[in-house]
Amino acid sequence: MSDISALWEAESIAVIGASERPGALGRKPLDYLLRYGYKGRILPVNPRSPEILGVPAYPSVKDAPGPVDLALIMVSAERVPGAVDDCVAAGVKLAVIASSGFAETGEEGARLQEEIVAKARAGGLRIIGPNCIGAVGYENRVLATFSPLFGAESVPFEPGTLAFVSQSGALGFGAASLALERGLRPGWVVSTGNDADVTALEVLRELATVPEVTGLLGYLEDTPDIGTLRELAGSGKPVALLKSGRTEAGGRAAASHTGALATDDRVLDAALRGLGIVRVDDIDELLDVARVFESERRPTGNRVAVVTTSGGSGILAADAVEAHGLELSSLEPRSKEALAEIVPAFGAIDNPVDITATVLSDPSLFDRSLDVLIADDTVDIIVAAFCVMAGPDVEKAVNALSRAAEKGGKPILVARTGADFLAPDAPRDLREAGLPEYPTPARALRAAAALWEVSRPRTLPDAPRPGTVPGPGAEATEPELKRLLAEAGIAVPKGRIAESAEDAVRAVTEVGGTAVLKAVVPGLLHKTEAGGVEIGVTADTAPEVHARLAALGGQVLVEELIDGKGEGVELIVGVHTTDLGPVLTAGLGGIFTEVLDDVGHRLLPLAPGEGAALLGGLRGARILGGARGRAAVDIEAAAELLHKVGELVQDWPAGFALDLNPVRVLPTGAVVLDAALGFEAPQEAGR
Amino acid sequence: MSDISALWEAESIAVIGASERPGALGRKPLDYLLRYGYKGRILPVNPRSPEILGVPAYPSVKDAPGPVDLALIMVSAERVPGAVDDCVAAGVKLAVIASSGFAETGEEGARLQEEIVAKARAGGLRIIGPNCIGAVGYENRVLATFSPLFGAESVPFEPGTLAFVSQSGALGFGAASLALERGLRPGWVVSTGNDADVTALEVLRELATVPEVTGLLGYLEDTPDIGTLRELAGSGKPVALLKSGRTEAGGRAAASHTGALATDDRVLDAALRGLGIVRVDDIDELLDVARVFESERRPTGNRVAVVTTSGGSGILAADAVEAHGLELSSLEPRSKEALAEIVPAFGAIDNPVDITATVLSDPSLFDRSLDVLIADDTVDIIVAAFCVMAGPDVEKAVNALSRAAEKGGKPILVARTGADFLAPDAPRDLREAGLPEYPTPARALRAAAALWEVSRPRTLPDAPRPGTVPGPGAEATEPELKRLLAEAGIAVPKGRIAESAEDAVRAVTEVGGTAVLKAVVPGLLHKTEAGGVEIGVTADTAPEVHARLAALGGQVLVEELIDGKGEGVELIVGVHTTDLGPVLTAGLGGIFTEVLDDVGHRLLPLAPGEGAALLGGLRGARILGGARGRAAVDIEAAAELLHKVGELVQDWPAGFALDLNPVRVLPTGAVVLDAALGFEAPQEAGR
Repeated sequence: MSDISALWEAESIAVIGASERPGALGRKPLDYLLRYGYKGRILPVNPRSPEILGVPAYPSVKDAPGPVDLALIMVSAERVPGAVDDCVAAGVKLAVIASSGFAETGEEGARLQEEIVAKARAGGLRIIGPNCIGAVGYENRVLATFSPLFGAESVPFEPGTLAFVSQSGALGFGAASLALERGLRPGWVVSTGNDADVTALEVLRELATVPEVTGLLGYLEDTPDIGTLRELAGSGKPVALLKSGRTEAGGRAAASHTGALATDDRVLDAALRGLGIVRVDDIDELLDVARVFESERRPTGNRVAVVTTSGGSGILAADAVEAHGLELSSLEPRSKEALAEIVPAFGAIDNPVDITATVLSDPSLFDRSLDVLIADDTVDIIVAAFCVMAGPDVEKAVNALSRAAEKGGKPILVARTGADFLAPDAPRDLREAGLPEYPTPARALRAAAALWEVSRPRTLPDAPRPGTVPGPGAEATEPELKRLLAEAGIAVPKGRIAESAEDAVRAVTEVGGTAVLKAVVPGLLHKTEAGGVEIGVTADTAPEVHARLAALGGQVLVEELIDGKGEGVELIVGVHTTDLGPVLTAGLGGIFTEVLDDVGHRLLPLAPGEGAALLGGLRGARILGGARGRAAVDIEAAAELLHKVGELVQDWPAGFALDLNPVRVLPTGAVVLDAALGFEAPQEAGR
Repeated sequence: MSDISALWEAESIAVIGASERPGALGRKPLDYLLRYGYKGRILPVNPRSPEILGVPAYPSVKDAPGPVDLALIMVSAERVPGAVDDCVAAGVKLAVIASSGFAETGEEGARLQEEIVAKARAGGLRIIGPNCIGAVGYENRVLATFSPLFGAESVPFEPGTLAFVSQSGALGFGAASLALERGLRPGWVVSTGNDADVTALEVLRELATVPEVTGLLGYLEDTPDIGTLRELAGSGKPVALLKSGRTEAGGRAAASHTGALATDDRVLDAALRGLGIVRVDDIDELLDVARVFESERRPTGNRVAVVTTSGGSGILAADAVEAHGLELSSLEPRSKEALAEIVPAFGAIDNPVDITATVLSDPSLFDRSLDVLIADDTVDIIVAAFCVMAGPDVEKAVNALSRAAEKGGKPILVARTGADFLAPDAPRDLREAGLPEYPTPARALRAAAALWEVSRPRTLPDAPRPGTVPGPGAEATEPELKRLLAEAGIAVPKGRIAESAEDAVRAVTEVGGTAVLKAVVPGLLHKTEAGGVEIGVTADTAPEVHARLAALGGQVLVEELIDGKGEGVELIVGVHTTDLGPVLTAGLGGIFTEVLDDVGHRLLPLAPGEGAALLGGLRGARILGGARGRAAVDIEAAAELLHKVGELVQDWPAGFALDLNPVRVLPTGAVVLDAALGFEAPQEAGR
């Protein structure tokens, strides 16, 4: 038993603050443990009662017969430090602190929270909470919670394979209750409240190691730790997260600094996408995804076949296929031929395949058409969409679908737009057949898209390396940065510092006769606006331009003029560091970034192909492919540049913001025309 | 009784094809009429039985004792023409043809369908269907349907105030069954199948005149008739439509012709938005919107206050407010002061207002905080978000909310993320209190947004005038179009045709000394590419340029040079005609239209303010406001230009496509630089 897994494996549970008083919160866990048949030892702790609900009670957890696998602390905030001391003294390894009155109430509470965390860490005790509603492990009937959910008259309580972990206890148990009502089977429900020590994400990571778990569902309020996220993703178990707080005040205004374009929420989106973790926007969507996580069938592609008995459902399903980024298979020619033999003339053999209500009189239609779709190599996922159907009709459909799912191994999702009172056994039958069921085609397809998201083959990016290589300092000049870039194999314009007016003439000749001259003045941020850049300088004009730029107080850089004919496309590329690690941002320059906010983000290190995927996902991506009569530019070189930039900077200590703006992508190659480095805070030695 | 309202008012119903055989479709309507207590006369028609289910039957509807208000035809397709003849002979005014085998099966069926429609029209009979599942009016228990829905063991059957009309019978009755299951109350369910005569939209329009109807919900597959849509919107009843077929093959590729940018689906979006009809994307959303249509409280603005007992629900609600285009009220200062007195210290008095779980011990918290929000003039809609709560707690909340709703008249929506088994009376109590309930904050806010959409004050645009004014013909040249524009008060460059090289010199001088010369050659579509445009012509160069352009075979237009300094922003503006009427399209030129597809559409005539709203809704709208260091341009002039263009063309006969490309919007004013007119088909005399 690991420390955390005591939440569902504990063989003894102490309830500190246990009470017999009807209605008291401290009574509920005892009620629940007794009611649902917990097989371990129940150890009520209450200094004033020798027995509670017929169970021997102890004045302190120290007095309870050990070992105590799990302590549930339900005393008022000011008595929590004492309870923590007692747990440490009793050798308890994990405590769930349900009590409120900590960081959620303000500074004083935050201090109290720090105090108990310090005590616990010193004493080898891990803490879940405080300010949580506790946890439930269904298999062993570990109910370390006071959630009213388990006090209801009739609560389904069969252990399932879904794990729900929520920072908000109210939302977590609320969602779990909806899950039960909708026929889903949670096996673990954990609320972690203030996440003072153990975080919701750590609990998810621990649950990912439990063999019986088929799907992990989380509700988070705090920004997740990237290392834990990576480990969670690495478990191979499907994960869906609802992270609240998408709305962010400001921060999105036009900015050419890439860091300012990357809001925390967008960086998190990028991180989750890279890791193959589904991000959902609502509890309803979380539960819909949970349903598809109950089945272990996985698609090997994103091509959908829709089979329906109602033309209307079929059209709605087809609309949803596109809306959710899946593909409607065009079906193999032999499939269409086979379907033409099977489907009535007034049906449809194109995808969606409409087998019509005739199936009600001839159920073999289901079997025969599903056989065709199962055998079709252009079909990865099947969605069966039905409307109002009475009990016996649904039974026939379920039999056919169940047989097809077994046979083909392809995931089959069902959209049944009809009330359960029409077919009371349908939810159970579908469930037993491993066929996730949704009330509408759109919801089925949304879940199918999530299933593909967690099933898509992907190379998980390496964890970032510790930032021990010293990066360039705040004083790094443009030529110094460009030298670093060049050493990393990234193209920069040919050029050098010209030491004098005469040297500038020589340098202009060296770079081809027409040059760009730039003032190199540490701290001069807006070179162009300050008159520090001159384009199209020749040997004739070089001395005068050199003199003018040198007068700005620094050195003068002479560079070859790239793309004097205006060909190519400008990108803005940057890397800055965030709580989730270094983030690469790239977009098309000009109005795309400044007006349309059209940029993409990826966490470093990039996995293979991510650079190209980032560029391909831009709204203005067609510009790179040669829209509006222009030549296509070298997208491969641009993508390679993103990877090389990522490689170069990923060992730099945190706190920097590198801006390569612009990068010009040419018909062949991509060149960094300007580079600048900023720091958010005094540079630290380590990350 | 109007012809159509017999669907819910019929005092006598003939069932043609009635049968006593168990399981026969022709038996079901009789079963249902008898089972649910239809009070009118039931007239089974069957040539072989004198009595069916104890009711006297007739060999033909002609033999049945009249008047027959409604005939339900359930015979096979080939016998339908005879049944229609009989209905006409019997003086029936409305027949529901359930039979399949018509246009949905192909050409032969389509011919049969035309035949029965022709017979019906000649005989004064209106037809619902064919290929439908029939209709139900709850109040009078008119069940002219064979839907299995009404054969279920236990079906809720209390008349409600919602009207569902669906082309697809399966989806319509499927959605109705889900509505019942979710505690919604349909009062009318009508399926219209092939819409051969009476359309789904006509039925909705008829239902809009029924005083008891509080909300109209439709599922459409065919493009709706704009005139009927306008009348429906004009009824003032809230309407939500699910129109399938968003996915369209092709047609979206880059195009500078505005007509090609306006797909049918986008035009329909524009039409519905203009009319204040909610468009939904899924059956689930349709039902969620239906729920808020059951209440008749309407918001007077879009500012939301969220009150919650769970921080998590509050954050999710705030996220959803933004996602659905509503506003989170910042609350009046006096409200915050008042809330500070009421809400516990660990709650929150900013919006979302978190009154915390303390409310469970002190229910007055609900009343007092709701009183504050009801009195706050910056709050138009209140969303109360709860999680898992047991029965008595919900009861207290419902009491407080109900009282507040009565008192304030502001709509209050409830998000209760908890299973019904925790509070079995909650759905009923909330329903009786007129408080629409949703399982998650996101769904409550989506419904709130729909409620605001149908409640927003709007001037319904006038119906388009009949297109009797002849528009310009296909041969209209650029100067002729510009003359028309100028007569309509739309700015065009000063200029005229130059008859000769010498005249060109004079004309250049007249327009200010520097001019644009353009070849005016009927049929020359790509003037610029063909070398037919010369910019910056002076008196010196005018003769030579005139000679070159005249050589292209037409006239030469001399125009003043607008904006030689490159100031201003270019728009593309166009009008083309569609099945829904003339559509105005506008967007920023260049990459915005060609790469980003960033255009807006409005049906003509424009309602006041729609031009500005269209421009403000563009993704690149900030360009007009002066992004990237440029001066702002005259958005008012641009909006006014859209209205004037709309006025000018709206009387032209259908079939044209007018393109004003570019229109240059200057710091003051907006000028049409080029104009072209195309025709989709030979121009017809009328529309």
